[in-house]
Amino acid sequence: MNTFGKNLTLTTFGESHGPAMGGVIDGFPPGFKIDFDRLREDVAKRRPGSSVLVTARNESDSPEFLSGISPEGITLGTPIGFIVRNADHRSADYDDMGRVFRPNHADYTYIRRYGIRDHRGGGRSSARETVNWVVAGSLAIQWLESKGITIETVLSQVGSVTAGDIFDGLMTDPSKPFSLKIDPQLSEAMEELVKETKKAGDSIGGRVSCLITGIPAGIGSPVADKLHARLAAAMMSINAAKGFEYGLGFRAASSLGSETADHFLPIDASADALTTSTNYSGGIQGGISNGMPVYFSVAFKPTPTIMKPQETVDTEGKATILKPAGRHDPCVAVRAVHVVKAMAALVVADAML
Amino acid sequence: MNTFGKNLTLTTFGESHGPAMGGVIDGFPPGFKIDFDRLREDVAKRRPGSSVLVTARNESDSPEFLSGISPEGITLGTPIGFIVRNADHRSADYDDMGRVFRPNHADYTYIRRYGIRDHRGGGRSSARETVNWVVAGSLAIQWLESKGITIETVLSQVGSVTAGDIFDGLMTDPSKPFSLKIDPQLSEAMEELVKETKKAGDSIGGRVSCLITGIPAGIGSPVADKLHARLAAAMMSINAAKGFEYGLGFRAASSLGSETADHFLPIDASADALTTSTNYSGGIQGGISNGMPVYFSVAFKPTPTIMKPQETVDTEGKATILKPAGRHDPCVAVRAVHVVKAMAALVVADAML
Amino acid sequence: MNTFGKNLTLTTFGESHGPAMGGVIDGFPPGFKIDFDRLREDVAKRRPGSSVLVTARNESDSPEFLSGISPEGITLGTPIGFIVRNADHRSADYDDMGRVFRPNHADYTYIRRYGIRDHRGGGRSSARETVNWVVAGSLAIQWLESKGITIETVLSQVGSVTAGDIFDGLMTDPSKPFSLKIDPQLSEAMEELVKETKKAGDSIGGRVSCLITGIPAGIGSPVADKLHARLAAAMMSINAAKGFEYGLGFRAASSLGSETADHFLPIDASADALTTSTNYSGGIQGGISNGMPVYFSVAFKPTPTIMKPQETVDTEGKATILKPAGRHDPCVAVRAVHVVKAMAALVVADAML
Amino acid sequence: MNTFGKNLTLTTFGESHGPAMGGVIDGFPPGFKIDFDRLREDVAKRRPGSSVLVTARNESDSPEFLSGISPEGITLGTPIGFIVRNADHRSADYDDMGRVFRPNHADYTYIRRYGIRDHRGGGRSSARETVNWVVAGSLAIQWLESKGITIETVLSQVGSVTAGDIFDGLMTDPSKPFSLKIDPQLSEAMEELVKETKKAGDSIGGRVSCLITGIPAGIGSPVADKLHARLAAAMMSINAAKGFEYGLGFRAASSLGSETADHFLPIDASADALTTSTNYSGGIQGGISNGMPVYFSVAFKPTPTIMKPQETVDTEGKATILKPAGRHDPCVAVRAVHVVKAMAALVVADAML
Repeated sequence: MNTFGKNLTLTTFGESHGPAMGGVIDGFPPGFKIDFDRLREDVAKRRPGSSVLVTARNESDSPEFLSGISPEGITLGTPIGFIVRNADHRSADYDDMGRVFRPNHADYTYIRRYGIRDHRGGGRSSARETVNWVVAGSLAIQWLESKGITIETVLSQVGSVTAGDIFDGLMTDPSKPFSLKIDPQLSEAMEELVKETKKAGDSIGGRVSCLITGIPAGIGSPVADKLHARLAAAMMSINAAKGFEYGLGFRAASSLGSETADHFLPIDASADALTTSTNYSGGIQGGISNGMPVYFSVAFKPTPTIMKPQETVDTEGKATILKPAGRHDPCVAVRAVHVVKAMAALVVADAML
Repeated sequence: MNTFGKNLTLTTFGESHGPAMGGVIDGFPPGFKIDFDRLREDVAKRRPGSSVLVTARNESDSPEFLSGISPEGITLGTPIGFIVRNADHRSADYDDMGRVFRPNHADYTYIRRYGIRDHRGGGRSSARETVNWVVAGSLAIQWLESKGITIETVLSQVGSVTAGDIFDGLMTDPSKPFSLKIDPQLSEAMEELVKETKKAGDSIGGRVSCLITGIPAGIGSPVADKLHARLAAAMMSINAAKGFEYGLGFRAASSLGSETADHFLPIDASADALTTSTNYSGGIQGGISNGMPVYFSVAFKPTPTIMKPQETVDTEGKATILKPAGRHDPCVAVRAVHVVKAMAALVVADAML
Repeated sequence: MNTFGKNLTLTTFGESHGPAMGGVIDGFPPGFKIDFDRLREDVAKRRPGSSVLVTARNESDSPEFLSGISPEGITLGTPIGFIVRNADHRSADYDDMGRVFRPNHADYTYIRRYGIRDHRGGGRSSARETVNWVVAGSLAIQWLESKGITIETVLSQVGSVTAGDIFDGLMTDPSKPFSLKIDPQLSEAMEELVKETKKAGDSIGGRVSCLITGIPAGIGSPVADKLHARLAAAMMSINAAKGFEYGLGFRAASSLGSETADHFLPIDASADALTTSTNYSGGIQGGISNGMPVYFSVAFKPTPTIMKPQETVDTEGKATILKPAGRHDPCVAVRAVHVVKAMAALVVADAML
Repeated sequence: MNTFGKNLTLTTFGESHGPAMGGVIDGFPPGFKIDFDRLREDVAKRRPGSSVLVTARNESDSPEFLSGISPEGITLGTPIGFIVRNADHRSADYDDMGRVFRPNHADYTYIRRYGIRDHRGGGRSSARETVNWVVAGSLAIQWLESKGITIETVLSQVGSVTAGDIFDGLMTDPSKPFSLKIDPQLSEAMEELVKETKKAGDSIGGRVSCLITGIPAGIGSPVADKLHARLAAAMMSINAAKGFEYGLGFRAASSLGSETADHFLPIDASADALTTSTNYSGGIQGGISNGMPVYFSVAFKPTPTIMKPQETVDTEGKATILKPAGRHDPCVAVRAVHVVKAMAALVVADAML
């Protein structure tokens, strides 16, 4: 229930307002030197307050590694245990929580699932959980880079400000150079929109796009563990995710086969490294990577927490008004940029091991 | 690699051009009476040729049950083994297959994954595999219906003919009656478009939408086995699936939190059966069902096989032309209507057990 | 519940008196040529009636392979599905079964577990299930042999006729040649004892010993998947198994550390292939193979079915007498010789993959 | 690789000489009140130095719970994360460890498995790991007791001092009162023998016996997850375990079926709670509990570490003498009394959930 992966597994724990988050990474390759500065950087980026786009919760977020890594920073092949302390166990703005079912939160579903819930906060449903994923993902990212695989993610939409079909160039002519960078003006407009939304006490949806390059052909499985199915499951596990598409995505529904076939290009010598003329497939055919870039996008809904009074019911089912509390991170997708990258790294590393 | 599920598992086998497909369903509840007529009907619907929209491969498709069910048709709690014989092991139109990598097929990725592939056909990547899923799914559907849960699926788009935001009514006012039925004229237009595409020797994409009603609150898990993440993985496991969205889906990216919150409605007595004013969440909050209808859509690409010559390479990497062969099922999505239903049933039943 | 293994899995199905047994082997290495004559031989050996020591049930036992193997007999990397038809679905001697709880059988525990049971026979608890294991095990045995690993098993005890501490030589001086062969006179005495027991309508326990040679160092895991723990679980899964010991086994409880340490012997060049002066460890240290022979023994209780009237109760709890039926295989351990070998092969192959 | 269980899982981490041990317990039932005093007691008992029989390593052993339990001590249904700090990360007596392969330790097998090992100590192979199991096991023990299930363990043999067939009474007449208590004189003799062995700088093997009462009928599975197979795997996972037997155990090999059948006793009303005249089966039939007491024994080899010089080789394969270091716990079985109980509790709780 709290374990991701098969060969490389991440088992996590931690309530948002308990003493600590943490996890166990099992199956990580032995003999790999960890760059802890890089890791701290990755974790810091995820933290609310790390960007102008999001406001801070006071999270210290320095993971403590407890096992699996030698004093010299070399992985031992044994499970890597880590914890990340929660700086503020309990704050005033959650006072109502034990008595009210917040709209679009998991308060009610928790009660129905477990008969009890952590009245101190969002429990396991809090975005706080993703700090565990980013810690583990950072290790996976480093290992993948040592294999020549890089993962990039970008915020490709906030509300009506959108980068559109961001992978078009890559799809129609993968032989041309491609960059996932967003036009700076567009990025500014997204930033501006997040700020405005925040000022209005509202929240807003967004979309994150991801590009994986350097992944060799032959990764994934043809039936139950298709590479894209595992990516989909990982992405839809991120808080507030509502949609996933890879390759042509939803546009595939309106496409013709004759116009979207990726033709293999002839090569001189052996069939060792085929490429295709186009990349509508998104680098995966029959659930297995074909050596072309893998790319996908994930849609996120607005943060459920807003700074406006909201009608809801209490735990007795009686109508009540949920008053806005002091903290507010209006666009989940902003932070998800780092979480998508971490989860993609875990999935790809798992499929390779 | 060939097992779906956790508590209710389906392990499958079978190459499209081998002697038989088959599977093992483990964890099915004991003491349940199977309706075999209903099952045969479900399996027949999936078969190509069962609809005017698709042409036939000669598949007999009568599953033989070998275990787990008493002579009286009652499940025993033990694993249910079944096989479905393949009527035509090998046909002339696959003669090239051993020497050519077909575009958009998994021929090349198989070779890279396994170093060998079944030159008789698509192996495990064939849509033929889905007959196993439909057999198992039919049992799950029957069991879910006995619990008051129904699953409906519909073809909601073929190429440019689309039913649009088909769940709009359900989303904005779930208190009103809602039917997943498509306007007959629209259905006819889809049918017409499939026929034309077939005549042109081309193939075309489509979209399938699914509605699950009667699912109680509390099904699913908050972190690694979110109900919608498991639905996503199952749907993206279906051949040719390119995208998955539930609830607001990709529209969530352009939505405001204040406009898409599902407010809990007050009730008289206990909090036993809360409902929400709207259902933008798609019946799932924090990965756990909230008792409202669950709905989602899946995008499918056009069938890779078309009746036109296609440029590709042979297994030596030399340019070659793949000549069209005698059989052709132009719209994967048509058949996927039944597969989506089967896989959704397996996921929901698994989550309930 | 019906799946063994992690990387190489075997999922089985089949009631003893249903139409067929069968299974799915997933994760078997691709590109391996199967020797089907060898396989049929292995399966035939398991069959009751194949030895003078056991009487026959009319089992045809020719596995039909349905997938995962090319027409040329080469494994494809895809799941290997197979079935073995049951020749006699229902025989008169099981007439009482629906109404009586047989002593030492699983009739009563099945009812308590599932609320229902297959009144045609022993259901999944029948030794008939082991035909699936022997089919799968034969493939694993062949693959292991291609890697230089051989597995031998022998009947080392029947009742009071015992080969004693059969591994003593191997334990105290592994540098000397060692054979698992039993003295022919002893074997004859065991055979005689089984015959006498059968004539008396009684049944008798036994012990099977197993030797695995050629297993390289480094196979297994140090905590949750210790090689010997997985062997123990596999062996204790065999019908009627009551005890497992490896290396010094139960004698370890009365040993001194100074007398049973396996000292590493110096070698000239690298530490690539260390050996030890003695092999009290049974070839496994800390759950991981050390390159020395692995050996263990398994104790089996007498067959529960005997040819004497037995006091028991019916499904209402009323006293009744279970009358002896027409068939009787007095010593489970005789057949288990082949099952132990098959299961050991599956465990070792799994741990290597 | 470091996860035990299926529905109730324990995933552990920690090197013996790293900063901390720890684990994640997933699937523990929600709403259960934990008795922390009881837990601390259980953990303290396991600690070396807690008994006159063993010498102390300075282990503080107070688990810190980080999640899954409310401030009021109620389980939340979410994963329970905990850590146990290691008091002495590194001590002088392990100076040689990086250069020498200790006899009967896992130093060499680790290098062959991972290509690297933690030169600070025994890594994951240290008995230190079992503190994680005892922490998790204590929670399981408490939950089982709330269901009327109790688990007792006892040291039933040290070297030649043995309690013999300790379960004889229970086996032959389960209707009579039965206590697992060992005769005080025998216990004293065991204690004396451990002391003497320690004084001699040697180590000695032992045996632990376990009795589980109150377990309802119907727990376990008939094929791949037989209750006794899971107990066997758990027991053989304990450091230094060499053998496992339940019910008649190895004595079954020399028994007759007519003399060891457990006859069901007639009852007045329904078949709801059958008992048997004898309990040779050890409370399990066909892998499923039958409601009678479950009992088994585990044999342990002597501690590999002794206080005498030992011949071995260094990492280059050259002969060397391993000098005795300052610490020494001569009888693994003494501490295993608590570990067997913890692991048995985890297995039974898992099978019930």
